[in-house]
Amino acid sequence: MKYHFTKKISGMSFEDTVQKVTDELKSEGFGVLTEIDVKETLKKKIDVDFRKYKILGACNPHFAHKAIQAEPHIGVFLPCNVIVQETGTDEIEVSAVDPLASMSSVENENLNDIAGEVRSKLQAVIDKI
Amino acid sequence: MKYHFTKKISGMSFEDTVQKVTDELKSEGFGVLTEIDVKETLKKKIDVDFRKYKILGACNPHFAHKAIQAEPHIGVFLPCNVIVQETGTDEIEVSAVDPLASMSSVENENLNDIAGEVRSKLQAVIDKI
Repeated sequence: MKYHFTKKISGMSFEDTVQKVTDELKSEGFGVLTEIDVKETLKKKIDVDFRKYKILGACNPHFAHKAIQAEPHIGVFLPCNVIVQETGTDEIEVSAVDPLASMSSVENENLNDIAGEVRSKLQAVIDKI
Repeated sequence: MKYHFTKKISGMSFEDTVQKVTDELKSEGFGVLTEIDVKETLKKKIDVDFRKYKILGACNPHFAHKAIQAEPHIGVFLPCNVIVQETGTDEIEVSAVDPLASMSSVENENLNDIAGEVRSKLQAVIDKI
């Protein structure tokens, strides 16, 4: 099962791509609540050199509220992540999680409807990058 | 499919429970890289009153490094979350994600081995709370 929506980008810096992703998430009602710099974290914690790789934790508060009301433990899958990674010279990949994939183990029809709506919005973000 | 390991706690404050979870995660090699206060976020963003509910994003850098090397888009499922929520008067629930559930849509045997090891460590954290 495909578990992410991905687009390859060129002609834009890594930092500008992260900003563009943040802006497009905002236009679909998602705030970026968390940001993990994987390259920096791996260097600091285990002294490993890694490519540029960021994990943005995106949350639409209306959907998050509905989701937790429908399924009290769903926070183990929140927020919905969008990752930005350098995959080559002048090549960056942006990938959004497919919430229907991450939550596929949860048997709850009400939650599936919400996850489906969030899925459409995240797909729209990737389409607009 | 069960997608989390959960334990009910009583006789400890919410804040002390979060601290205890953070300490036990550390003893298993996980740092808490992100922390989302769901109650505060919902109040601020959509003016909704909600119970105490925190999402801790836990990362063991050795396993994260191996996982991203085995599966470059796996960052959409990272970090592994542990949630702490108030479920009643003097009742708190602590739940860790089962990484085999969150990553069940990924077909990659090498990743499954790593997810299985992380699963054991998270289960050990919940057992020790």
